[in-house]
Amino acid sequence: MKTDELAELGQQLRVDSVRASAAAGSGHPTSSMSAADLLAVLLANHLCYDFERPEHPANDRFVLSKGHASPLLYAAYKACGAIEDGELVTFRKLGSRLEGHPTPRRLPWVETATGSLGQGLPVGVGIALAGKRLDRAGYRVWVLCGDSELAEGSVWEAAEHAGHENLDNLIVIADVNRLGQRGPTRHGHHLDAYARRFQAFDWHTIEIDGHDVDAIDRAYGEALSTTGQPTVILARTLKGKGVASVQDREGLHGKPLPEAEEAIAELGGPRRLHVRVSEPPAAAALRSLTTEVLQLPRYDQGDEAATRDAFGKALAALGTARGDVVALDGEVGDSTRTEEFAKAHPDRFFECYIAEQQLVAAAVGMATRGWVPYASTFAAFLTRAHDFVRMASISGSGINLVGSHAGVAIGQDGPSQMGLEDLAMFRSVYGSTVLYPCDANQTARLVAAMAGLDGIRYLRTSRGKTPVIYGPEEEFPVGGSKTLRSGEDDRLTVVAAGVTVHEALAAADRLAEDGIGVRVIDLYSVKPVDAETLRRAAEETGCLLTVEDHRPEGGLGDAVAEAFGDGRPVPRLVRLGVRTMPGSAAPDEQLHAAGIDAAGIAAAAKLLVEEAVVR
Amino acid sequence: MKTDELAELGQQLRVDSVRASAAAGSGHPTSSMSAADLLAVLLANHLCYDFERPEHPANDRFVLSKGHASPLLYAAYKACGAIEDGELVTFRKLGSRLEGHPTPRRLPWVETATGSLGQGLPVGVGIALAGKRLDRAGYRVWVLCGDSELAEGSVWEAAEHAGHENLDNLIVIADVNRLGQRGPTRHGHHLDAYARRFQAFDWHTIEIDGHDVDAIDRAYGEALSTTGQPTVILARTLKGKGVASVQDREGLHGKPLPEAEEAIAELGGPRRLHVRVSEPPAAAALRSLTTEVLQLPRYDQGDEAATRDAFGKALAALGTARGDVVALDGEVGDSTRTEEFAKAHPDRFFECYIAEQQLVAAAVGMATRGWVPYASTFAAFLTRAHDFVRMASISGSGINLVGSHAGVAIGQDGPSQMGLEDLAMFRSVYGSTVLYPCDANQTARLVAAMAGLDGIRYLRTSRGKTPVIYGPEEEFPVGGSKTLRSGEDDRLTVVAAGVTVHEALAAADRLAEDGIGVRVIDLYSVKPVDAETLRRAAEETGCLLTVEDHRPEGGLGDAVAEAFGDGRPVPRLVRLGVRTMPGSAAPDEQLHAAGIDAAGIAAAAKLLVEEAVVR
Repeated sequence: MKTDELAELGQQLRVDSVRASAAAGSGHPTSSMSAADLLAVLLANHLCYDFERPEHPANDRFVLSKGHASPLLYAAYKACGAIEDGELVTFRKLGSRLEGHPTPRRLPWVETATGSLGQGLPVGVGIALAGKRLDRAGYRVWVLCGDSELAEGSVWEAAEHAGHENLDNLIVIADVNRLGQRGPTRHGHHLDAYARRFQAFDWHTIEIDGHDVDAIDRAYGEALSTTGQPTVILARTLKGKGVASVQDREGLHGKPLPEAEEAIAELGGPRRLHVRVSEPPAAAALRSLTTEVLQLPRYDQGDEAATRDAFGKALAALGTARGDVVALDGEVGDSTRTEEFAKAHPDRFFECYIAEQQLVAAAVGMATRGWVPYASTFAAFLTRAHDFVRMASISGSGINLVGSHAGVAIGQDGPSQMGLEDLAMFRSVYGSTVLYPCDANQTARLVAAMAGLDGIRYLRTSRGKTPVIYGPEEEFPVGGSKTLRSGEDDRLTVVAAGVTVHEALAAADRLAEDGIGVRVIDLYSVKPVDAETLRRAAEETGCLLTVEDHRPEGGLGDAVAEAFGDGRPVPRLVRLGVRTMPGSAAPDEQLHAAGIDAAGIAAAAKLLVEEAVVR
Repeated sequence: MKTDELAELGQQLRVDSVRASAAAGSGHPTSSMSAADLLAVLLANHLCYDFERPEHPANDRFVLSKGHASPLLYAAYKACGAIEDGELVTFRKLGSRLEGHPTPRRLPWVETATGSLGQGLPVGVGIALAGKRLDRAGYRVWVLCGDSELAEGSVWEAAEHAGHENLDNLIVIADVNRLGQRGPTRHGHHLDAYARRFQAFDWHTIEIDGHDVDAIDRAYGEALSTTGQPTVILARTLKGKGVASVQDREGLHGKPLPEAEEAIAELGGPRRLHVRVSEPPAAAALRSLTTEVLQLPRYDQGDEAATRDAFGKALAALGTARGDVVALDGEVGDSTRTEEFAKAHPDRFFECYIAEQQLVAAAVGMATRGWVPYASTFAAFLTRAHDFVRMASISGSGINLVGSHAGVAIGQDGPSQMGLEDLAMFRSVYGSTVLYPCDANQTARLVAAMAGLDGIRYLRTSRGKTPVIYGPEEEFPVGGSKTLRSGEDDRLTVVAAGVTVHEALAAADRLAEDGIGVRVIDLYSVKPVDAETLRRAAEETGCLLTVEDHRPEGGLGDAVAEAFGDGRPVPRLVRLGVRTMPGSAAPDEQLHAAGIDAAGIAAAAKLLVEEAVVR
C-alpha cells in the first residue's frame, strides 16, 4: 500500500476502535488511536501471516503488549478479513471472543494473553528465542508496546536478554503517546530517553513520527534489514489522534469517546478497506524431532537421593526421549540440577540469569510454538514471577515450573531462600497442577508425567537427600496418593508430602511402639487432590493430621480440607506447618523447631488420639 | 585510615569471613572476599554511623543487597566493635543472630532483609526517597550490590526511579566479580557494559579496580560530592580474592574454603584492627509531625459508594490526622483513588509509575525510617511484587498494601485485571493481616486501623459501588466479623466478604421467603479470622457456605476451614468461588456466571438444606 491508502487504513482502524468501544460502553479507544498508523503499515506492508492458518510455522508473530488497546487489534482483524463487522461490535460483551484484553483461549491469532503491562515483550523474547534457536525459522516477532509499560523492570530484563542473544528477529514498536492512565509518563515525548536506554542494552533504535506512514514504512524496512541485534522503533504519537476533543488530552484513558458519532465523522466516517496481509513463505520445513523410549533414572529402595537430583537426571532423560522438551534456569542450574539437562542437551538449554520474570516469560513464549519448557529456580524465587504465572494461566499456556529448595528443610541459608509460600501461590492459579514428590523414583515419574498435562504444572523439589522408598516401577498418577501405612485399628491419618513423608513414617513407627496405629498417606499430588482416599481415611480413622514444610495457609492442609468441600461432614482436621519465622539452623533442627519432624508429628498425634478417648 | 591500614583491614575482613564460614561449615566466603576492600574503605573513611544508636536519625544507611555475603557484613560488625569474635563464629548456627542472610528481626544494624537478589537497591531507593523528601536529613544510603543481581528487572526499575528523582544521597557499590552462582555473568568484567546502562538511566558512574583501596577511597569521595544524580561505583573485583586456590575460579560459590587454615595463613593470619566509624552529625533535628483528631469520611446507610472511593477518602483523612502517613501508587491513582491523598498531601505522595516491585520496595524503605506507607495498585498487579512482600515479612516490615479491582465484579475488563489470587497470596505471608471490606464506612475504619498493626497489612477494595450497610460509628475490630442475619431456626450460615456480602443478604431474603432461615456473616477480617463466631455458627446451624469473589483455593473458604484446625469436628463446609476462567461481561453477569451472586448462593443453600433433610 502507498501513503494515501495507508493513512486511510489508519483512519479506518481508528473509526472501528471508536465504534467497538462505543458499542461496549467501555474500552480504550484513545490508546488504540495513537497506534493505529503503526499497525496499519505493519499489516499492509510488512507482516507475513496467514489468518486462515494461525498455526503456520512460518507465520510472523504479533504480540499486543499494550493489551488494553484491544479495539485496535480487533479493528485490524476485521480489516484483514479475520472477523466480521458484526462480531467487532460484540466487543466486551458476555460470550464474545473479543475480550477487554485479548487472550489466545478465545482467539487463534493471539499469541499470549496481555493486559498486565510489561509482559508482552518478555514473552516475545521467548518466541524469538524459539525462532532462532529451536524452530530455526525465519519468522519475525513484532511486539507493540506502550510507553507507560517501559517502567516495568520486566521490560529491561527482556531488553537485556534480547540484546545479549542478538535477537534480530525481534522488533519492538513503542507507541510513545506520552500519557499513561493517570497522566503524563516519566519521559513524555522524549524519545531519546528511551533510545538511550535501549541502546545501552545493545538494541538498534529508530526514532520516528508515529503518524507519518512513510516514516513508519521506512522504519520497518530498516528493522527488517538490521542484523545481529533487536530493533526498537520509538514512535512519537498522540493519544486519541485524529479527534480534536480527545487528542493528547489527560483524563481520557480507558473511556469510550464522549461523542462517538461526531468523532467518527471527524475521522472521515467508516471505510471498507481490506488488507491483504502477505503470506508466509511456503517452504517452511516441518520440525523433525527425536522420539526415543524414555529411560528414566532408577534408584534402589533404601538408597538416599535428593529429589532435586532426581529431577535433573529425569529431565535430561526426558530431553533424550523427547526432542520437544527444553529447559530454562535462573542462573542456579547447579542447585536446581537443570545442569544435567544443559550438559546433555546444550542446544535446548536456556540460561536466563537472575531474572525470574524473563525465565517464566521465555517458557510461555516457547510454549506458544509447541515446545515443552521446564523452567526452574528456587521455589522461593518463583514468587518473583507470580504475575507471569497468573497471566500464563489466562493464556492457557502449558508450561512446567520447578521450584527447588522447598521449605525450612534447606537448613542454614535461612528464610530468604526457603520456599514457604509456593504451594499456596500455585494452588490458587487456575487450572494448575501441583506436585510434591518425596523420593527419587517418584520424582522421576512425575517429571515425565507433567509434560503431558494442560496448564501450569508445578513440581516442588527438596535440597537434601531423602530415602528412596518406592521402587522404580511404581506408578504415580496425577491426582493420586500412596497409603504407606495402614491397619485395621488406625486411630488417625497423617497426611504428608515431600520431606514430611519420611518424618511421618518415623512418627508412625514410634507410635506403633506405643500401640497406637496410625495411617500415613503420601499426598504427592497436592492439586488435584485424591479426595476419595482422604475421605476413606477420614471415615476409617476419624482424624486427619496434615504435616507440611510450608506455611499453614494455602498448602497441603488447605488442599486436604478442600477434599471435603462437597458438603459432607468433615472429620477432625489438624494441620502442622511452619508457623514461625525460621532463622539459620541445620535441616533437622529446622524441622524440629517448626514442629514438623517425627517428634512433632508423634506428639501431635498422641494428643489427638488421647483427646478422642476423652471425648 | 591510610592505604596500608585499609589494605590490612580488607585482609582482616577476608580472614574473618573465611573463619565464620569455616565454623559454620557453609556460607559464602568467596563472595565476601571480593567485596572486602570496598567495605573496609567505606567503614574506615566514609560511613557515618553510630553502632550504639542504630536508630539515630542522622545515621547513614547501609544495605547489603548481595545478602549472601553476610560473613563480610558480620566481619565488619566485629571490626567496628558491634559484635565480639565469639559471636562471629556462631554464624549460621541455631539461635545465632548471624543468619545465613542478614535480617533486621535479629540485628539492629540491618535495614532490610536481603537474600533474594535485586531487592537491596529498590529498598535503598525507598530509604533515599525518605531521606530527601520526608526526613529531609543529610544521611546517605549505601547499597552494596553483586553483579549477578543486576540482571533483575527490579534493579532497573530502581535505577529509573532513582535517576528520575535525582537521588544524589544514594550510592551503589557494585562488586563486579564476574562470577555468579553457576558460572560467569553475562558481562563478566566489562564494567563499561554496566556503566552504559546506568548512564542511560541518568546515573553518575565511576569505574575502578575494587582492590585498589586508594581508588576506592577517591571514588567514594567523588560519589559524595556528586549532586543531582545517584552514583554507581563499578568495581572490578575477584571472587575469592587473596587466596590463590579459590581466587577468580568457578564452582566455588556458596562453599566454605576447602583449606581454611591455609587460606587464613595466605591472607596473613588473623588481625585485631578496630575501626572507628565516623559519628553522624549531632544536630539532626527530630521530626515534628502533625497530629490531629482523625475525621474519617462518613456515609449514610442506604447510600451507595465504592470501597475504593472510601479508601481514597479515608487515606486522605488519615494523612491529615497523622503526619507520618505516606502514600505510593503504581500510576493508577485515579483507579485506586490514592489521588485523593495526592491532592491533599502532595509532599507525602509518591508516584511509582508502572513498577510494582519498586512500589512495594519503596514502602519497605520508608517504613525502615518510621514512616507509615500505604502502597496501592490493582490487586491483580500486586502479584508482581510477591517476592518483595515475602522478603518484607522476613524483615518484619510494617507496610500497608491496598489492592483495588478485586475479583470478577470488575466486569468488562476481563481476567487480566481481576484480583483473583490476592487473598491466597497475602494469607500465606507470615504475620500478615488480610482485610476485605464490603461497605464504605467499614472501609474507612479498617484503613485507619491497619496503620497501627504489625507486619504486612493488606486491604482489598472493589471497583463498583456497593450499598452502605453500616453506620459511621460502627466499629470493626481486626480479627472480628459481623453477623448480619441471625435467627433461632437458621439452617445454614453463609460466610461472605466484600461484594458477596450483599449477594448473601439478597440470597437470605429470598430464602426467608421460602421459609428457610439463613445466617449471614460478614467476614471482613480474613486473617486473623473470627474463629469463635464461625464455630458458634457451625454449632448452631450445622453447615457453613462460604462465598468469595476469588479462586476457591487459599481465600475465604480456606480461612474459614482454618478456624476449625484445632482438632474439633468440622461442620459441613461448602465453598463457592470463581472456578472458571472469566471473559468480558457486565459485573452482575460475571457474578452470576461464577455462581457467587444471590441466585447462586440461594440455589446452593437450598441444595444443602434439602440434603440435610434427606440425611
